[in-house]
Amino acid sequence: MEAKEKKKTGGLAGVVAGRSAICTVGTGHGLNYRGYDIYDLAKNATFEEVSYLLTKGALPTQSELEIYKKELIQARALPDALKVVLRTLPKNAHPMDIMRTGCSTLGCLEPEADNFSDQGAKITRLMGIFPSILLYWHHYHVNGKEIDTNSSQDTIGGYFLEKLHNKQPSELWIKAMHVSLILYAEHEFNASTFVARIGASTLSDIYSAITAAIGVLRGPLHGGANEAAMELISEYKSVHEATRGIYEKLENKAKIMGFGHRVYVSNDPRNIVIKEWSRKLADDVGNSTIFPISEIIEKIMWDEKKLFPNLDFYSASTYHFMGIPTAYFTPIFVMSRTAGWAAHVVEQRGDNKLIRPNSEYIGPENRAYVDIKNR
Amino acid sequence: MEAKEKKKTGGLAGVVAGRSAICTVGTGHGLNYRGYDIYDLAKNATFEEVSYLLTKGALPTQSELEIYKKELIQARALPDALKVVLRTLPKNAHPMDIMRTGCSTLGCLEPEADNFSDQGAKITRLMGIFPSILLYWHHYHVNGKEIDTNSSQDTIGGYFLEKLHNKQPSELWIKAMHVSLILYAEHEFNASTFVARIGASTLSDIYSAITAAIGVLRGPLHGGANEAAMELISEYKSVHEATRGIYEKLENKAKIMGFGHRVYVSNDPRNIVIKEWSRKLADDVGNSTIFPISEIIEKIMWDEKKLFPNLDFYSASTYHFMGIPTAYFTPIFVMSRTAGWAAHVVEQRGDNKLIRPNSEYIGPENRAYVDIKNR
Repeated sequence: MEAKEKKKTGGLAGVVAGRSAICTVGTGHGLNYRGYDIYDLAKNATFEEVSYLLTKGALPTQSELEIYKKELIQARALPDALKVVLRTLPKNAHPMDIMRTGCSTLGCLEPEADNFSDQGAKITRLMGIFPSILLYWHHYHVNGKEIDTNSSQDTIGGYFLEKLHNKQPSELWIKAMHVSLILYAEHEFNASTFVARIGASTLSDIYSAITAAIGVLRGPLHGGANEAAMELISEYKSVHEATRGIYEKLENKAKIMGFGHRVYVSNDPRNIVIKEWSRKLADDVGNSTIFPISEIIEKIMWDEKKLFPNLDFYSASTYHFMGIPTAYFTPIFVMSRTAGWAAHVVEQRGDNKLIRPNSEYIGPENRAYVDIKNR
Repeated sequence: MEAKEKKKTGGLAGVVAGRSAICTVGTGHGLNYRGYDIYDLAKNATFEEVSYLLTKGALPTQSELEIYKKELIQARALPDALKVVLRTLPKNAHPMDIMRTGCSTLGCLEPEADNFSDQGAKITRLMGIFPSILLYWHHYHVNGKEIDTNSSQDTIGGYFLEKLHNKQPSELWIKAMHVSLILYAEHEFNASTFVARIGASTLSDIYSAITAAIGVLRGPLHGGANEAAMELISEYKSVHEATRGIYEKLENKAKIMGFGHRVYVSNDPRNIVIKEWSRKLADDVGNSTIFPISEIIEKIMWDEKKLFPNLDFYSASTYHFMGIPTAYFTPIFVMSRTAGWAAHVVEQRGDNKLIRPNSEYIGPENRAYVDIKNR
């Protein structure tokens, strides 16, 4: 699969901002993590193996994985002060604001050592606690109940589903979460990851870097796209309605989210994987409208605009079929991408140079100061 | 004054990452805000005039300034939920973590409109509330008292000093705060500002952008440098001790903070201004050691390394003479630089393109996936 030719078109498009051994876009089926094809990882691995690969550099052995999973389980517990904060934040807050504030608060409570000697433990802590942060806040405000962070589930995806629905998730759904979390885990110098690296480059702490990344991911031109895709799909009750609606949007030049990509030119390799999972879960839950609606939108966008669905488009329906509220799609992205962000923080720290570009000045030159009395 | 010749040396050094009409480095005395020489602004203007200039594009008239100052005063009030959070965060937290979490929390409580129609009001809110956030947390944990955000002071610097010391600050100190806040307010595409722009480029909200910037500023290679400079100066009780100590550090290749700059080549124009204020305040408080110690460190660093003090170096003693705890130097930087960050967010939104660079891949190619049983 080819990636777009690198050319300067503003927004640093095609500009090489640094070196990295974490991810390649455009090789193999189109995306490799540390040299492994994303298709192999999505098919064969669990998310925990992939987050280990990303943050520690190699796929774990069975015993390494067991230790790592135990650490992740221990990392789910919420400190009392964080619970107070989550209870204090309002019910109608944006869930990404909750994730950002939860991460920042944890940085006040359990700061990283100045020499970063505990960075590995802090990364595991964040990976483990993010589902607890979201779902403690959720259940407290929606049901008036405090969740118990103990669980029979030994994976991040399984834990998330169990705590969200308060019941054991099926193996199929747990597998779908693995696949989705794997696909979202890492994507080279995307905007939020680049911000995490800039944070690391000033020698700031890992909570600052991840908090910053969450804030940047929140934008609809980045992580927020999966939520926007679901909102689009939900507008229509039938393939017929969707067909008419999308043509209408195209005529009105409305922005249609979940299509195209800064880096990929002819398709998003992650889409091929997640689309199959969306189809599987539609069958599993017996939903016969959303998948065909998604497919007709995909077809029209290709026919009319030569735009392909990116990962966000079929992730939306995949999450929807599992009963996940749309507003939590981007927080799930956080739970996954923290692995990538953290890997880049560690890599940046390993060979650091302050990331600080220049700007081209286009404003007024040398204006004489005028005292306020004479303005 | 000349700025360093632009060349590619990693960390995007010399790479033009976008256009901006806000700030030039290298013209006039070396730094202009929207075309006005920093020397004129520091000498003649108040910080509120400069923050108005940066965030709204022009110096205010007398009546515009009066309205703006009233808005800033109204913006000092702390919502009850934010007070709960600040009381919950621990006494021993890093003050920059408090600023970051305070900003993020406010974003949960008073979110920005999705179409950014209230961005101006949110910017003023943040400028007004930051001193309250720091000093409410400070007095609650240090003295067990909740501060009253009402004040007789009508400037950000005066309000900060009054609430810190719980007494009326002198006109000289208020003027020193104006100068310092003006000098720190804006500096082109520095790391934290660039991060704020990346946040804006994903169409994330302004709280996310500013929260991210605070986290990035926290690093000792960025905003944290003024604190590090004070810690260095405080190591010595005399010029003699400092001389011996700095030569020793140089021999041991220890990092000496507050010197040199990514952009400036032969001196930092801001240093010339702040150094005079450090001298003035040394006289004002009758301190006869710290200024000469600072000067001998400056001389040795130039003689031995041809490194000049940057803004951070004499800012450190300037703040110290006003009784400001060293740990609050970087939070003051936040109170000032929020004007620059916000100006860049507004500018980025006005002509937006997602900021998303590429990386050069240096990792392993196409590794065959090995099942966990065979690792």
